[in-house]
Amino acid sequence: MQEKSLQTTCPFCSPAIESATFGADEHFRAVYNLAPILPGHSLVLPKRHVESLLHLSDSEAAEMMLFARKVVQVLLKAFHGRAFDWTIQEGVEAGQSIPHLHLHLIPRQAADLPAPGDWYPVLMDSLTIDAIDSQQRPRLSREEMDRIVAHLREVWEEKG
Amino acid sequence: MQEKSLQTTCPFCSPAIESATFGADEHFRAVYNLAPILPGHSLVLPKRHVESLLHLSDSEAAEMMLFARKVVQVLLKAFHGRAFDWTIQEGVEAGQSIPHLHLHLIPRQAADLPAPGDWYPVLMDSLTIDAIDSQQRPRLSREEMDRIVAHLREVWEEKG
Repeated sequence: MQEKSLQTTCPFCSPAIESATFGADEHFRAVYNLAPILPGHSLVLPKRHVESLLHLSDSEAAEMMLFARKVVQVLLKAFHGRAFDWTIQEGVEAGQSIPHLHLHLIPRQAADLPAPGDWYPVLMDSLTIDAIDSQQRPRLSREEMDRIVAHLREVWEEKG
Repeated sequence: MQEKSLQTTCPFCSPAIESATFGADEHFRAVYNLAPILPGHSLVLPKRHVESLLHLSDSEAAEMMLFARKVVQVLLKAFHGRAFDWTIQEGVEAGQSIPHLHLHLIPRQAADLPAPGDWYPVLMDSLTIDAIDSQQRPRLSREEMDRIVAHLREVWEEKG
Protein backbone atom coordinates (compact mmCIF):
# COMPACT_ATOMS: atom_id res chain seq x y z
CA MET A 1 0.00 0.00 0.00
CA GLN A 2 2.91 2.30 0.68
CA GLU A 3 4.08 1.85 -2.88
CA LYS A 4 0.66 2.75 -4.23
CA SER A 5 0.54 5.78 -1.97
CA LEU A 6 3.92 7.00 -3.21
CA GLN A 7 2.83 6.58 -6.78
CA THR A 8 0.02 9.01 -6.22
CA THR A 9 2.06 11.61 -4.35
CA CYS A 10 5.65 11.42 -5.62
CA PRO A 11 6.06 12.51 -9.23
CA PHE A 12 9.28 10.52 -9.45
CA CYS A 13 7.43 7.34 -8.48
CA SER A 14 4.60 7.94 -10.93
CA PRO A 15 4.28 5.62 -13.94
CA ALA A 16 4.45 8.81 -16.06
CA ILE A 17 8.17 9.00 -15.30
CA GLU A 18 8.78 6.27 -17.87
CA SER A 19 8.01 8.50 -20.84
CA ALA A 20 10.58 11.03 -19.61
CA THR A 21 13.29 8.40 -19.05
CA PHE A 22 16.07 8.24 -21.61
CA GLY A 23 18.50 5.94 -19.84
CA ALA A 24 18.46 3.50 -16.97
CA ASP A 25 20.45 0.84 -15.24
CA GLU A 26 19.51 -1.51 -12.45
CA HIS A 27 18.82 1.11 -9.79
CA PHE A 28 18.83 4.54 -11.46
CA ARG A 29 17.15 6.40 -14.24
CA ALA A 30 17.94 9.54 -16.24
CA VAL A 31 14.92 11.73 -16.82
CA TYR A 32 14.47 14.75 -19.04
CA ASN A 33 12.91 17.69 -17.25
CA LEU A 34 9.53 18.63 -18.65
CA ALA A 35 10.25 22.21 -17.58
CA PRO A 36 14.01 22.54 -18.29
CA ILE A 37 15.71 25.72 -17.15
CA LEU A 38 18.16 25.28 -20.03
CA PRO A 39 18.26 22.82 -22.93
CA GLY A 40 19.45 19.48 -21.60
CA HIS A 41 18.37 19.97 -17.97
CA SER A 42 17.94 16.43 -16.72
CA LEU A 43 17.67 14.55 -13.46
CA VAL A 44 19.25 11.36 -12.16
CA LEU A 45 17.19 9.53 -9.57
CA PRO A 46 16.96 6.14 -7.92
CA LYS A 47 14.12 4.01 -9.22
CA ARG A 48 12.99 3.20 -5.72
CA HIS A 49 11.75 5.95 -3.43
CA VAL A 50 14.87 7.01 -1.53
CA GLU A 51 14.83 10.36 0.20
CA SER A 52 18.48 10.80 1.07
CA LEU A 53 21.80 10.28 -0.63
CA LEU A 54 22.86 8.84 2.71
CA HIS A 55 20.21 6.13 2.48
CA LEU A 56 21.74 4.50 -0.58
CA SER A 57 23.97 1.51 0.03
CA ASP A 58 27.65 2.01 -0.76
CA SER A 59 27.30 0.02 -3.94
CA GLU A 60 24.23 2.01 -4.99
CA ALA A 61 26.03 5.29 -4.28
CA ALA A 62 29.03 4.21 -6.35
CA GLU A 63 26.67 3.09 -9.11
CA MET A 64 24.91 6.47 -9.01
CA MET A 65 28.20 8.28 -9.59
CA LEU A 66 29.16 6.15 -12.59
CA PHE A 67 25.64 6.31 -13.96
CA ALA A 68 25.53 10.10 -13.61
CA ARG A 69 28.87 10.46 -15.37
CA LYS A 70 27.42 8.55 -18.32
CA VAL A 71 24.39 10.85 -18.30
CA VAL A 72 26.72 13.86 -18.40
CA GLN A 73 28.53 12.43 -21.40
CA VAL A 74 25.24 11.82 -23.19
CA LEU A 75 24.04 15.36 -22.46
CA LEU A 76 27.32 16.96 -23.53
CA LYS A 77 27.17 15.06 -26.80
CA ALA A 78 23.49 15.66 -27.46
CA PHE A 79 23.65 19.36 -26.59
CA HIS A 80 27.17 20.00 -27.91
CA GLY A 81 28.57 21.26 -24.63
CA ARG A 82 31.66 20.69 -22.52
CA ALA A 83 30.54 22.29 -19.24
CA PHE A 84 27.85 21.30 -16.80
CA ASP A 85 26.32 21.99 -13.41
CA TRP A 86 25.79 19.05 -11.08
CA THR A 87 23.82 19.63 -7.91
CA ILE A 88 21.87 17.92 -5.17
CA GLN A 89 19.85 19.88 -2.65
CA GLU A 90 19.09 17.57 0.22
CA GLY A 91 16.49 18.56 2.79
CA VAL A 92 14.01 21.41 2.78
CA GLU A 93 16.55 23.61 4.55
CA ALA A 94 18.75 23.22 1.46
CA GLY A 95 16.00 24.00 -1.01
CA GLN A 96 14.86 20.48 -1.89
CA SER A 97 11.33 20.46 -3.23
CA ILE A 98 10.47 16.82 -3.92
CA PRO A 99 11.57 14.40 -1.18
CA HIS A 100 12.96 11.81 -3.59
CA LEU A 101 16.72 11.98 -4.10
CA HIS A 102 17.59 13.64 -7.41
CA LEU A 103 20.70 15.08 -8.99
CA HIS A 104 20.28 18.01 -11.39
CA LEU A 105 22.52 17.84 -14.45
CA ILE A 106 22.55 20.91 -16.68
CA PRO A 107 24.84 21.07 -19.72
CA ARG A 108 26.13 24.60 -20.26
CA GLN A 109 27.11 26.71 -23.22
CA ALA A 110 29.09 29.93 -23.35
CA ALA A 111 26.72 32.86 -22.81
CA ASP A 112 23.66 30.65 -22.42
CA LEU A 113 22.72 32.91 -19.51
CA PRO A 114 23.82 36.49 -18.74
CA ALA A 115 26.34 35.14 -16.21
CA PRO A 116 27.53 31.54 -15.73
CA GLY A 117 26.07 31.42 -12.25
CA ASP A 118 22.60 32.49 -13.27
CA TRP A 119 21.36 28.93 -13.65
CA TYR A 120 20.78 28.68 -9.95
CA PRO A 121 18.38 31.56 -9.32
CA VAL A 122 16.49 30.41 -12.40
CA LEU A 123 16.29 26.95 -10.90
CA MET A 124 15.08 28.35 -7.61
CA ASP A 125 12.44 30.57 -9.18
CA SER A 126 10.06 27.74 -8.72
CA LEU A 127 10.44 25.23 -5.95
CA THR A 128 8.28 22.92 -7.99
CA ILE A 129 10.52 22.91 -11.01
CA ASP A 130 11.52 19.33 -10.38
CA ALA A 131 7.96 18.18 -10.70
CA ILE A 132 7.42 16.69 -14.08
CA ASP A 133 3.81 17.70 -13.60
CA SER A 134 4.73 21.24 -12.60
CA GLN A 135 2.31 23.90 -13.74
CA GLN A 136 4.59 26.62 -12.45
CA ARG A 137 6.98 26.89 -15.38
CA PRO A 138 6.64 26.71 -19.15
CA ARG A 139 6.37 23.08 -20.07
CA LEU A 140 7.52 21.38 -23.21
CA SER A 141 4.76 20.13 -25.43
CA ARG A 142 4.27 16.39 -25.58
CA GLU A 143 5.76 16.41 -29.09
CA GLU A 144 8.85 18.36 -28.02
CA MET A 145 9.33 16.12 -25.00
CA ASP A 146 8.99 12.94 -27.06
CA ARG A 147 11.42 14.22 -29.68
CA ILE A 148 14.11 15.14 -27.16
CA VAL A 149 13.72 11.94 -25.15
CA ALA A 150 13.89 9.87 -28.36
CA HIS A 151 17.10 11.63 -29.39
CA LEU A 152 18.65 11.18 -25.95
CA ARG A 153 17.76 7.50 -26.00
CA GLU A 154 19.64 7.16 -29.30
CA VAL A 155 22.73 8.90 -27.89
CA TRP A 156 22.44 6.75 -24.77
CA GLU A 157 22.51 3.59 -26.88
CA GLU A 158 25.51 4.87 -28.85
CA LYS A 159 27.42 5.34 -25.61
CA GLY A 160 26.92 1.64 -24.91
CA MET B 1 58.35 20.50 -13.63
CA GLN B 2 54.66 20.47 -14.37
CA GLU B 3 53.96 19.53 -10.77
CA LYS B 4 56.06 22.44 -9.53
CA SER B 5 54.27 24.78 -11.88
CA LEU B 6 50.87 23.63 -10.65
CA GLN B 7 51.92 24.16 -7.08
CA THR B 8 52.54 27.80 -7.79
CA THR B 9 49.34 28.43 -9.76
CA CYS B 10 46.67 26.03 -8.43
CA PRO B 11 45.61 26.78 -4.85
CA PHE B 12 44.38 23.20 -4.52
CA CYS B 13 47.86 21.89 -5.37
CA SER B 14 49.62 24.26 -2.99
CA PRO B 15 51.29 22.78 0.10
CA ALA B 16 49.11 25.20 2.10
CA ILE B 17 46.12 22.96 1.38
CA GLU B 18 47.36 20.56 4.06
CA SER B 19 46.51 22.87 6.92
CA ALA B 20 42.92 23.16 5.65
CA THR B 21 42.52 19.39 5.22
CA PHE B 22 40.43 17.60 7.83
CA GLY B 23 40.02 14.22 6.18
CA ALA B 24 41.66 12.26 3.40
CA ASP B 25 41.82 8.86 1.81
CA GLU B 26 44.08 7.54 -0.91
CA HIS B 27 43.00 9.90 -3.69
CA PHE B 28 40.78 12.60 -2.15
CA ARG B 29 40.86 15.22 0.55
CA ALA B 30 38.22 17.21 2.42
CA VAL B 31 39.16 20.85 2.89
CA TYR B 32 37.56 23.55 4.97
CA ASN B 33 36.94 26.75 3.05
CA LEU B 34 38.95 29.66 4.37
CA ALA B 35 36.13 31.92 3.18
CA PRO B 36 33.00 29.84 3.91
CA ILE B 37 29.68 31.17 2.69
CA LEU B 38 28.03 29.39 5.62
CA PRO B 39 29.47 27.52 8.61
CA GLY B 40 30.69 24.15 7.41
CA HIS B 41 31.26 25.07 3.76
CA SER B 42 33.85 22.55 2.64
CA LEU B 43 35.29 21.14 -0.54
CA VAL B 44 36.11 17.64 -1.69
CA LEU B 45 38.91 17.44 -4.24
CA PRO B 46 41.26 14.90 -5.75
CA LYS B 47 44.79 15.09 -4.42
CA ARG B 48 46.23 15.06 -7.90
CA HIS B 49 45.48 17.89 -10.30
CA VAL B 50 42.42 16.63 -12.20
CA GLU B 51 40.35 19.19 -14.05
CA SER B 52 37.27 17.17 -14.91
CA LEU B 53 35.01 14.74 -13.15
CA LEU B 54 35.13 12.82 -16.42
CA HIS B 55 38.90 12.41 -16.12
CA LEU B 56 38.70 10.30 -12.97
CA SER B 57 38.89 6.55 -13.44
CA ASP B 58 35.72 4.64 -12.63
CA SER B 59 37.22 3.45 -9.36
CA GLU B 60 38.30 6.97 -8.43
CA ALA B 61 34.84 8.33 -9.24
CA ALA B 62 33.18 5.69 -7.10
CA GLU B 63 35.67 6.43 -4.33
CA MET B 64 34.89 10.14 -4.58
CA MET B 65 31.19 9.47 -4.02
CA LEU B 66 31.76 7.34 -0.94
CA PHE B 67 34.36 9.74 0.39
CA ALA B 68 32.05 12.73 -0.11
CA ARG B 69 29.21 10.96 1.69
CA LYS B 70 31.51 10.50 4.67
CA VAL B 71 32.38 14.20 4.52
CA VAL B 72 28.67 15.06 4.55
CA GLN B 73 28.14 12.91 7.63
CA VAL B 74 31.04 14.61 9.39
CA LEU B 75 29.74 18.07 8.50
CA LEU B 76 26.18 17.27 9.56
CA LYS B 77 27.45 16.01 12.89
CA ALA B 78 29.91 18.84 13.48
CA PHE B 79 27.45 21.58 12.48
CA HIS B 80 24.30 19.89 13.81
CA GLY B 81 22.45 19.83 10.50
CA ARG B 82 20.48 17.38 8.46
CA ALA B 83 20.36 19.18 5.11
CA PHE B 84 23.11 20.02 2.66
CA ASP B 85 23.90 21.40 -0.76
CA TRP B 86 26.21 19.36 -2.98
CA THR B 87 27.40 20.94 -6.19
CA ILE B 88 30.03 20.76 -8.90
CA GLN B 89 30.37 23.45 -11.53
CA GLU B 90 32.47 22.04 -14.31
CA GLY B 91 33.91 24.35 -16.94
CA VAL B 92 34.01 28.13 -17.08
CA GLU B 93 30.66 28.16 -18.90
CA ALA B 94 29.18 26.56 -15.79
CA GLY B 95 30.76 28.99 -13.35
CA GLN B 96 33.88 27.05 -12.37
CA SER B 97 36.60 29.34 -11.09
CA ILE B 98 39.56 27.10 -10.27
CA PRO B 99 40.28 24.42 -12.89
CA HIS B 100 40.81 21.64 -10.37
CA LEU B 101 37.80 19.41 -9.81
CA HIS B 102 36.02 20.26 -6.56
CA LEU B 103 32.69 19.46 -4.99
CA HIS B 104 31.11 22.07 -2.71
CA LEU B 105 29.44 20.65 0.39
CA ILE B 106 27.45 23.09 2.49
CA PRO B 107 25.53 21.88 5.55
CA ARG B 108 22.30 23.81 5.97
CA GLN B 109 20.16 24.93 8.86
CA ALA B 110 16.59 26.17 8.89
CA ALA B 111 16.57 29.92 8.22
CA ASP B 112 20.34 30.15 7.87
CA LEU B 113 19.67 32.37 4.87
CA PRO B 114 16.55 34.40 3.97
CA ALA B 115 15.53 31.68 1.52
CA PRO B 116 16.92 28.13 1.18
CA GLY B 117 18.24 28.84 -2.30
CA ASP B 118 20.19 31.95 -1.33
CA TRP B 119 23.44 30.04 -0.82
CA TYR B 120 24.08 30.05 -4.52
CA PRO B 121 24.08 33.78 -5.28
CA VAL B 122 26.25 34.19 -2.20
CA LEU B 123 28.61 31.60 -3.59
CA MET B 124 28.69 33.31 -6.95
CA ASP B 125 29.30 36.76 -5.54
CA SER B 126 32.94 36.07 -5.88
CA LEU B 127 34.25 33.74 -8.53
CA THR B 128 37.37 33.38 -6.45
CA ILE B 129 35.58 32.06 -3.41
CA ASP B 130 37.07 28.64 -3.91
CA ALA B 131 40.55 29.99 -3.58
CA ILE B 132 41.85 29.32 -0.15
CA ASP B 133 44.01 32.37 -0.74
CA SER B 134 41.05 34.49 -1.82
CA GLN B 135 41.26 38.13 -0.85
CA GLN B 136 37.78 38.76 -2.18
CA ARG B 137 35.74 37.55 0.75
CA PRO B 138 36.07 37.78 4.51
CA ARG B 139 38.56 35.17 5.57
CA LEU B 140 38.69 33.24 8.78
CA SER B 141 41.59 34.09 11.02
CA ARG B 142 44.35 31.51 11.30
CA GLU B 143 43.13 30.74 14.83
CA GLU B 144 39.50 30.25 13.72
CA MET B 145 40.59 28.10 10.81
CA ASP B 146 42.84 25.93 12.97
CA ARG B 147 40.12 25.49 15.59
CA ILE B 148 37.50 24.39 13.06
CA VAL B 149 39.85 22.09 11.19
CA ALA B 150 40.98 20.50 14.46
CA HIS B 151 37.37 19.87 15.46
CA LEU B 152 36.51 18.41 12.06
CA ARG B 153 39.54 16.14 12.25
CA GLU B 154 38.23 14.80 15.57
CA VAL B 155 34.78 14.13 14.15
CA TRP B 156 36.41 12.52 11.11
CA GLU B 157 38.31 10.11 13.35
CA GLU B 158 35.16 9.30 15.31
CA LYS B 159 33.44 8.33 12.09
CA GLY B 160 36.21 5.77 11.51
